Amino acid sequence: MDKGRTPSFSRTEMTELVLPGDSNQLGNILGGRLMHWIDLAAAITAARHAGHVAVTASMDSLEFLHPVKVGQVVRLIAQVNWVGRTSMEIGVDVYREDMHDDDIKKTSTAYLTFVALDDNGKPIEVPRLILETPEEIERFHQAEQRRQERLKHRQRAKE
Amino acid sequence: MDKGRTPSFSRTEMTELVLPGDSNQLGNILGGRLMHWIDLAAAITAARHAGHVAVTASMDSLEFLHPVKVGQVVRLIAQVNWVGRTSMEIGVDVYREDMHDDDIKKTSTAYLTFVALDDNGKPIEVPRLILETPEEIERFHQAEQRRQERLKHRQRAKE
Amino acid sequence: MDKGRTPSFSRTEMTELVLPGDSNQLGNILGGRLMHWIDLAAAITAARHAGHVAVTASMDSLEFLHPVKVGQVVRLIAQVNWVGRTSMEIGVDVYREDMHDDDIKKTSTAYLTFVALDDNGKPIEVPRLILETPEEIERFHQAEQRRQERLKHRQRAKE
Amino acid sequence: MDKGRTPSFSRTEMTELVLPGDSNQLGNILGGRLMHWIDLAAAITAARHAGHVAVTASMDSLEFLHPVKVGQVVRLIAQVNWVGRTSMEIGVDVYREDMHDDDIKKTSTAYLTFVALDDNGKPIEVPRLILETPEEIERFHQAEQRRQERLKHRQRAKE
Amino acid sequence: MDKGRTPSFSRTEMTELVLPGDSNQLGNILGGRLMHWIDLAAAITAARHAGHVAVTASMDSLEFLHPVKVGQVVRLIAQVNWVGRTSMEIGVDVYREDMHDDDIKKTSTAYLTFVALDDNGKPIEVPRLILETPEEIERFHQAEQRRQERLKHRQRAKE
Amino acid sequence: MDKGRTPSFSRTEMTELVLPGDSNQLGNILGGRLMHWIDLAAAITAARHAGHVAVTASMDSLEFLHPVKVGQVVRLIAQVNWVGRTSMEIGVDVYREDMHDDDIKKTSTAYLTFVALDDNGKPIEVPRLILETPEEIERFHQAEQRRQERLKHRQRAKE
Repeated sequence: MDKGRTPSFSRTEMTELVLPGDSNQLGNILGGRLMHWIDLAAAITAARHAGHVAVTASMDSLEFLHPVKVGQVVRLIAQVNWVGRTSMEIGVDVYREDMHDDDIKKTSTAYLTFVALDDNGKPIEVPRLILETPEEIERFHQAEQRRQERLKHRQRAKE
Repeated sequence: MDKGRTPSFSRTEMTELVLPGDSNQLGNILGGRLMHWIDLAAAITAARHAGHVAVTASMDSLEFLHPVKVGQVVRLIAQVNWVGRTSMEIGVDVYREDMHDDDIKKTSTAYLTFVALDDNGKPIEVPRLILETPEEIERFHQAEQRRQERLKHRQRAKE
Repeated sequence: MDKGRTPSFSRTEMTELVLPGDSNQLGNILGGRLMHWIDLAAAITAARHAGHVAVTASMDSLEFLHPVKVGQVVRLIAQVNWVGRTSMEIGVDVYREDMHDDDIKKTSTAYLTFVALDDNGKPIEVPRLILETPEEIERFHQAEQRRQERLKHRQRAKE
Repeated sequence: MDKGRTPSFSRTEMTELVLPGDSNQLGNILGGRLMHWIDLAAAITAARHAGHVAVTASMDSLEFLHPVKVGQVVRLIAQVNWVGRTSMEIGVDVYREDMHDDDIKKTSTAYLTFVALDDNGKPIEVPRLILETPEEIERFHQAEQRRQERLKHRQRAKE
Repeated sequence: MDKGRTPSFSRTEMTELVLPGDSNQLGNILGGRLMHWIDLAAAITAARHAGHVAVTASMDSLEFLHPVKVGQVVRLIAQVNWVGRTSMEIGVDVYREDMHDDDIKKTSTAYLTFVALDDNGKPIEVPRLILETPEEIERFHQAEQRRQERLKHRQRAKE
Repeated sequence: MDKGRTPSFSRTEMTELVLPGDSNQLGNILGGRLMHWIDLAAAITAARHAGHVAVTASMDSLEFLHPVKVGQVVRLIAQVNWVGRTSMEIGVDVYREDMHDDDIKKTSTAYLTFVALDDNGKPIEVPRLILETPEEIERFHQAEQRRQERLKHRQRAKE
């Protein structure tokens, strides 16, 4: 597993049309539907990087900054920010488009960690991350900080 | 809207059987499926407390501590922890049961904020929260602290 | 398989929000959607009691006494009433809540029989039922009567 | 609404392939999935006869006589048996086919009552039933008896 | 595999009620939902003829001649037109019914080719087609012509 | 509606993970599931170009050149090729990725026509298409030819 992979290798774009079956009785998207799409986009990115199926280990706090309604379009961009031995941090940016007025709003940014699994469901090593741009290096450092926060948070939860 | 409501008034229990349609090719539940259930349990609790439909505003960081497989049962308990003017914090505890060996594991604790909406989709005031037990008072205080954290976090994100 | 289990061991509570995807064009829930939830709640209860997956063998007659609309909440309580060698009777009470006016109505009571299966799909013995309260004993006797009715009914159908 | 309609006018045939998303972890169809299909076939028949949307009022007791597995085909035939002022009894025969050995088994017979609704959700009169064959007349009489049983049953439940 | 089968042996009728979960925000059915039903009806027909699971290889051009709305009924009739060694052409006629005015419209005719697979996913020979009526013979000849067109089309695409 | 839009304005990328709920019992994706995704990607592109919801009018013939299995990833790229007064031709390229061996295959190319609708469901004029690259001009001309073929085909079907 000596060959590494760039963030752009596994970058994933997902586009979804919000349908009546995704919404509540006022025509607002269900928050959980949006979370499901975020998780799927991140899962595909993680699997593309790892070359193996990957399962969600955690999601950082998530805000929905703008309402999303039936008939609008949701676009998600997922990218690997950081890679450990068997785990990865994936960042997902969520945009809402309204086609009537070309209004595009960033509604959420999500950070999820995934663990790659072999065919028996055991954690497996993932390729290292080859950083090519200053932006990717910056993302890596921020992810490293979030990782420290998560470990501290977990430590505190145990005490 | 002077009448208040207790946490137990809107407490919600949800039980789900993990089916092949909820899982990946290894039989692990999709993280997003679990998030969808968490959001639904919280949305029902928020709507029961508010007497109105409520939409997800945010979810705090979330960990999946134990794998959940096809054929296992997921039980979710959602409860109002804190109430503002139009928003509420809902806590959701997630348990995974394996029926073969009676093994029950708490896999996640989630904290979500919801905003109640009137029939035109505008935020509407929610009943105040009547705290009856020491545990409910403790939950309220912890939710108050998480709220301060969220406000600080949002402030930092804007700067 | 000498250890028995109480009805409360496997008692299942399920709560569902009725969404546009669950309803017809007038916003009424599909009867079959409600039946699906009833069957799931009973299947979970049967599997919890048996310690094995269980499949539906029959459902007694079922009435829908009150309309259920999009935006309302459906709560289901399932409980083991009676246990044979490999089969169980599960009772499911179905409640409809309207959050606008706190109006709760019992819409249905269902009785289903399930058979527990081993990993090869063959019927397998289930733990005996430990009855603890007068109400549980009463439920057991009524289930026994329903069982006699079902056997008679099946006999008549064959003739 | 003086014109009547024959049973064959609204007779409905539905065929479904049992997919992994319809089944439990052993590959057995979920009972509730089958009930959902039965209800849909009956709802279409009732709506075709009434010329209006119709909602499920009740389902008589139902047995699943043969297991149904992923990859098998389920065929449902629904037909109006009896018509009152605003309600109808629909009979649904359920067959399971296995394509490997051409084995066809009748797994269930279901009887459901539906009420036709106008565009405001109020019960509306349905066309009378024109019986053309001895078999249809026989079905009508048996449905009349089941109706008496249901009324008695409901009376007893109230006492 | 010397025994043949008639088109009527595997003829499949499917009936679907168009629900809010199948439609866009104007209440029009999603084209892809209709295609999914067309493919399922054809897949069942192909599997019934072959006695094995069959997968879609191609679909000829398809038009939607009339809008289909929530609350309407879609009826699909699928039939084997032509059979090769491991592949079959299935024709599917799609009708839309409106129950308010008994208006029935043929909205589409689809032609799909399927390949039968054995349990390891390898193509497997299918029974020959026994043609019994002049209409079936006519259908066979037209399918033969469409097949020539497809082969020419594929040849052109490669050049 | 004098302002035009480029193909890149509405270009849509969709990525989907093939899950057990999308497949048959051998783990092959259902053809209709793939068609549903193709139609959704095209519908989003059409709506983005038109600034209005758009419904499927037709799909040209479609081949599935490579099997797609559970656990693989499907990527769809949709683009406006041609625009008339109220209708548009959308081209969709479909790729299948296997993450174990980085193997990417183009499985299908689809051409769909859509009609834009106003809020009352009536056809509405769409912005003209601004062609910027030689490839876009080439696509436009090929779409023009396919359009002539479709009109001829429709003419022949009527005779």
